Order: sequence, then structure tokens, then C-alpha cells
Amino acid sequence: MKLLAIREQTIPLSAPMRNASVSYDAMTASALCVISDCLVDGQPVVGFAFDSIGRYGKGGLLRDRFIPRLLAADASLLLDSSGLIDPSACVAVLMQNEKEGGHGERPGAVGLIEAALWDLRAKLEGKPLWRVLAQQCGRPLTASGAVFSVYGSCGHFRPGRGAAELDGLAAEVAAARAAGFTTVKVKIGGANLEDDVARARAAIDAAAGGRIAVDVNGKLDPLIEVRWLEAMGALGVAWVEEPASPLDYQRLARIAAMSPIPVATGENLFSWDDARNLLRYGGLRPDRDLIQVDISLSYGIGEYLRILESFESAGWSRRAMVPHAGHLFAAHAVAGLGLGMHESASDLSLAFGGLWDGTEITESCAKASEAPGVGFEFKSRLMQWLRPLGESLSP
Amino acid sequence: MKLLAIREQTIPLSAPMRNASVSYDAMTASALCVISDCLVDGQPVVGFAFDSIGRYGKGGLLRDRFIPRLLAADASLLLDSSGLIDPSACVAVLMQNEKEGGHGERPGAVGLIEAALWDLRAKLEGKPLWRVLAQQCGRPLTASGAVFSVYGSCGHFRPGRGAAELDGLAAEVAAARAAGFTTVKVKIGGANLEDDVARARAAIDAAAGGRIAVDVNGKLDPLIEVRWLEAMGALGVAWVEEPASPLDYQRLARIAAMSPIPVATGENLFSWDDARNLLRYGGLRPDRDLIQVDISLSYGIGEYLRILESFESAGWSRRAMVPHAGHLFAAHAVAGLGLGMHESASDLSLAFGGLWDGTEITESCAKASEAPGVGFEFKSRLMQWLRPLGESLSP
Repeated sequence: MKLLAIREQTIPLSAPMRNASVSYDAMTASALCVISDCLVDGQPVVGFAFDSIGRYGKGGLLRDRFIPRLLAADASLLLDSSGLIDPSACVAVLMQNEKEGGHGERPGAVGLIEAALWDLRAKLEGKPLWRVLAQQCGRPLTASGAVFSVYGSCGHFRPGRGAAELDGLAAEVAAARAAGFTTVKVKIGGANLEDDVARARAAIDAAAGGRIAVDVNGKLDPLIEVRWLEAMGALGVAWVEEPASPLDYQRLARIAAMSPIPVATGENLFSWDDARNLLRYGGLRPDRDLIQVDISLSYGIGEYLRILESFESAGWSRRAMVPHAGHLFAAHAVAGLGLGMHESASDLSLAFGGLWDGTEITESCAKASEAPGVGFEFKSRLMQWLRPLGESLSP
Repeated sequence: MKLLAIREQTIPLSAPMRNASVSYDAMTASALCVISDCLVDGQPVVGFAFDSIGRYGKGGLLRDRFIPRLLAADASLLLDSSGLIDPSACVAVLMQNEKEGGHGERPGAVGLIEAALWDLRAKLEGKPLWRVLAQQCGRPLTASGAVFSVYGSCGHFRPGRGAAELDGLAAEVAAARAAGFTTVKVKIGGANLEDDVARARAAIDAAAGGRIAVDVNGKLDPLIEVRWLEAMGALGVAWVEEPASPLDYQRLARIAAMSPIPVATGENLFSWDDARNLLRYGGLRPDRDLIQVDISLSYGIGEYLRILESFESAGWSRRAMVPHAGHLFAAHAVAGLGLGMHESASDLSLAFGGLWDGTEITESCAKASEAPGVGFEFKSRLMQWLRPLGESLSP
């Protein structure tokens, strides 16, 4: 088999919301489709991928460097011994003549291609991706399927809400709770202790017995961090996310040493190199803290398995691994690799978040799709964006 | 004043050579031109920049994200109190709604724009950039100009040379010596001790009393590192460059602790965040080791000044700062900020390396250009690429 074409499109995500770090007004993401020469019912089998959100689309790198490099490679270098497309072998080709270090946009471009290749691969095997991943890693498979933990992500700052900000937040949390999420994460500011206590309390009240986590997106003011952590501990939040700037391991270690509650971080580290430094220097606690490296922003499954291996060698459990990015590809990784939790937009119907159409959440658990591949075809609002990429072979 | 347009072009650098890490067959770099509405002799004043080489052009990021963002900004946000373009203010605009961490391609795209803005700014002041930078930092200026140290970089592996590899290497080093470089850096493999000793010895012999540094581009085999460092020490090489993978600070610290010779590294760290981790964890020795962060791949002069401040606070001298990248912009930074050495291709006539046309090297020292801005206009082979970007205002 061989790849006939790879198509990408930059999708505008313009949303009137922000976290403590960035606004999403001009945010973009990339959609990708790899088209194979394998036919089913006369149609080429294709693999899709959709980006993680927050670090912009990868269009330029995909077009300028990585798509041409993969398509120019000898087709035999891209297959495994069974003659099927081998995502890891493809990543090795994509990374030819790339210098080490500098893990920024590149890991996301490579990871997006790897994700689409996994969708293609699983479709060619006629299996859901989570089963393919579990098999690759020698994990036991159950005929009855996979149930995985999922938490609901919502509660961004919405500048338009003005004085009704906390009411709006509470409504979002209540809706997430009603949708079946017993663990819900909301954004928090990190700049003013009283504001943050009020915000966390509003979310906790609205969660009606569910757990609330708070995400400060690297912006916790060092001047208030001691009292802030105490206050969040007193409120019993489930975890505090990204309290330090992502590469400031020294500050993270100081925070972890004094935090009464679990610390979660890693979504802005995009490689095994960086995750290893987090492990070496971040002072995180294997018995409670959470690692949130984003799989498709970090070169994909192959690199993520190296990260898992490093953490497991250091005494960490896979249950502490909670990948960032609420997309379907990550859900398969969580279900197939036995990770701790999947992050999902708590509004399941969103095109760029949520789960397969009709997925039920019960006590923050979901059942993995049995559709072949990632099952994008069973998320109609997202397929509106992906389908055109796979349809015509004319350039 | 305002910016009318920013043009970029990806330049193919296809060169039949490699280092221990990558081949340059398909390498690219970016050329950039910012066009202002200030007129001199009826022509708009423009600023040019040319990329550092080794990590590919930044075209996609420039077109998709950073050029539109800068041009869409309120013009007043881009100026200082004197009404002139302010490169640091422009970087603040470029980094709006960018998450922290993930310093890969982004710092190079931002750094390239910053470099072109510095060229523009210095031209508007009618001064060479090194004088503008020295003034910004409160460094004393001499009317007679600036002389800065420069080492010659050559000795890549050239697969076409076959058995004549060492003869070819020796010829390159001898030519560099004849051109006035008394310090010359060559590439070395890191995989086989005997091969590397032969290579270093051939270079040392050809240097006829000059100093030879060796660059292993992160590929020193851990199995031979102890004997390799001893051997390089016995040969008296000037420094060993990038012995460890760029983000493996733990290994770097182990190597620094046992290396009898200076260790140089940092060219694949692209931010103050990463440089601070090098400082915290890399175990480098302020009395002898060298820091090679690449200014225009790392968000530019503003970020580099933060890096300088961190290292100086930790007891380092500016003389230990030896920026990667043999381009004219870096030469101004070395001359203007009082850094240790400039890296230059030892073949001064190369379009994408070397110095201003006619620059003389004496005992590895050069005199900084007095032309306004960076003085690209006085490097004719590079201007063949840059001039068209500044010429027509039609898109």
C-alpha cells in the first residue's frame, strides 16, 4: 500500500473566551487527511486527524516541510512487516534531518500526521484505535469494550459576561454535572486570591457534590502562591493545574513541596526530552500528581510510549497520566493505553471538543467507540470539517 | 511612522554536506524584509533579516501567524517614545495570545522579524546596529569603531569526498588559517574514537599553530565519552561543542564535571526559559565554558538581554557568550553587546555566511561595519536574495 496524498486545512476557532494566559479570538487548529491507495467499496481508505487546541494550526510546517517529506519517501520505508502503514516508521522518516531540541510547533505537525496514520491503520485492521493501541502494548483486551474515566472541561473566562461571570460559570458547571461529569475543571485567574476563592466556590457549589479542578494556565502570581494553595486546599479542589510557567521546574518543585492538593502539569511540554526534565527536576509526587503531556502535540503515540516508560520506571502509575486535549484521538489513547482520565469539553456536542455523537457520560465514565479507527465518522459536527478533505483526489 | 508591508521568502540552501546530526541537502532558510513608510531619496526605508541555518525556514509561521498579527496591530503600539519603531514593543505584540513554553520554530519566526526591525531602526537612526545596541545597553562607544573576535567555522562532512575526506578537511582549515582565522571549528563524528582523533589531528596540523575546536552536534556516543574527552584534552582542542543532546542537562553536567577542556553548548535552546534551565541544571563552569544560544532563533535581542542578565547574575562573563549563527546580525550583537566571539563561515565570500564584502580577518579579529543598520547592502551575494524583497510594493 502507499499514501496517495495528504491534505490539511487550517480551521478558525474564533471563540469569545480566554484563560489566564491567552484569548481564543484568533485561535486556529489544523485538520488533516491522509489518503491511501487501499480501496473499500471503491473508495480509498483515509485517515483523519484534528488538532489539539491552544497553540494554533500547523499548516505552514505541514505544507512546507512534513507532508512533502513523507510523500517523497520510498513507500517501503513507511510499512511494517505486515505491509500495513506503520505510524512509528513514518515518524522516523518525518524526523530525518531534523536537529534535536526545539520542541515547539514541530512536534504538533508530526503528531498530527501520526494521529491520522493511526486512524488509517486502525481502519485497515477494521478495529477501533483503542484496541490496536492496547494490542501494540500487550494490554489485555476485553470483548465487552473499554470504559474510561473522563472529566469535563469548561468555565473559561468570557469577557462578554461582565458582572454575570460567576453566574455563567455556575451554569456551565451545572450543565456539565447534568451531562454526567462528576469531575469538572474550570479556568481560574491566579492574580487575585479573593476573586479566585469566589470563583472556585461558585464552581464547587454548582457541582453539587462533584469534584472541581482549577486550571491557572501558568499564571499563578508568586506573591500569593502560598495563601492561594492553602485556600484551594481548604476548598478541597481536585487538583490545581499548571501553577508554574511550563519550563520553570524549580518553581514547580517548590509548589509541589507545599501544595496540600494534587498538582497537574505538562500540557506545554512537547517531547520526551522535556517530559524527562519534568520528571528529573519538577519535584512532582507519584502518589498524587498528574502528568498532562498532550499526545498529538508531542510527536504522537510513539513518543508518548517513551514518556510512559520513563515515568513508570520512576515509580509512576499510568493512572497519573491524563493527556491534555479533548479530542477523540486522545480518548482512544486513554482507553487503549490504560491512562488515568480523558479531558473532554463538557459540552459533548461541540464540533471541536466532546466525544462521539450520543456518547453517554455516567459518573465521569464513558464507553469507547467500537467504530473502526478513531471514529470521526461518528461525530457529525466535526466531520463537516473533515469530510471534504477526504473526498476529491484532485488537488 | 508605520510598517507598510513585511515580505518573506524561503531560500533553498541545498548543500552536499552534513554534520554528525543532519544533512543539508534539503535545508532552507528565510529572508525577510520590513518596509516602512519613511522615505529617504524617495525610497521607503526597509529592514532586512536573514535566518540562522540548520532548522529550516520559518515561512509558514511568518505568513500564517506573525506577519499578519504585526501588521494588524495599532501602529502606535509598535513605536517608542521617540516615534521610532521599537523592536521590543513589536515582540510584545507578536507574542500576544501565545502560550508559554514550546520554544521551537516560534522563537525563530519572531526573532527574524525582530532582527529586520533592528536593521530598520538602526538605519532610521543612521547608525550601524552595533552602535545602537551598545547605546541601548549603556556600553561605552569608541569613535574609532569596534573590533570583535571571530572564529572560522568549516569542516563539515562531505559525503562526496570519500577517502579524501581528511585531505579535504585539512585544505578547508588551511584556507581558514590563510584567511586570518587563528581559531577554527570543525565538525566531528562522536561515534568512533580513532576516527575522531585522526580528524582532530588532521585539523590541528592544518591549523599551523591556530586553535581547533570540535563540534559533535549532540552525537557523542555515551559508550566512548570518557576516553573521547581525554583524547580531545590530550590533543588540546579549544573547546568541545554540544557533546550532549541539547535538553539532556544531566548528561551535560556529568560531561562538564569530567571534561579537561571547555564545553560549549546552547545553540538548540531557543528561549530564556531553556537557557535558565541550562544555567540551573547543566553544570557548566563560568570560568571556561561557552554559551552559544542563537539570538535570532531565540526571539531576538530582547530575549537575549534577559539571558545575559541571568548568566551575569550567576557569575558569568559576557566573554563566555558566543552566539551560534554566522550571520551579520549576530556579528553586530557580538560587537555591540561585548560578547566573546562571533561565529563566521571561514569562507567569507559565501552568500549565507561570512562577513561584509572585503572584511579583513587578522588573528581572528574583525572590524565591525560602520554602514547604517546591519549593512546587508555591503554583502553583495546575500543582497542578491534580499534586494528583490524590498523593491516593489505590489504584492
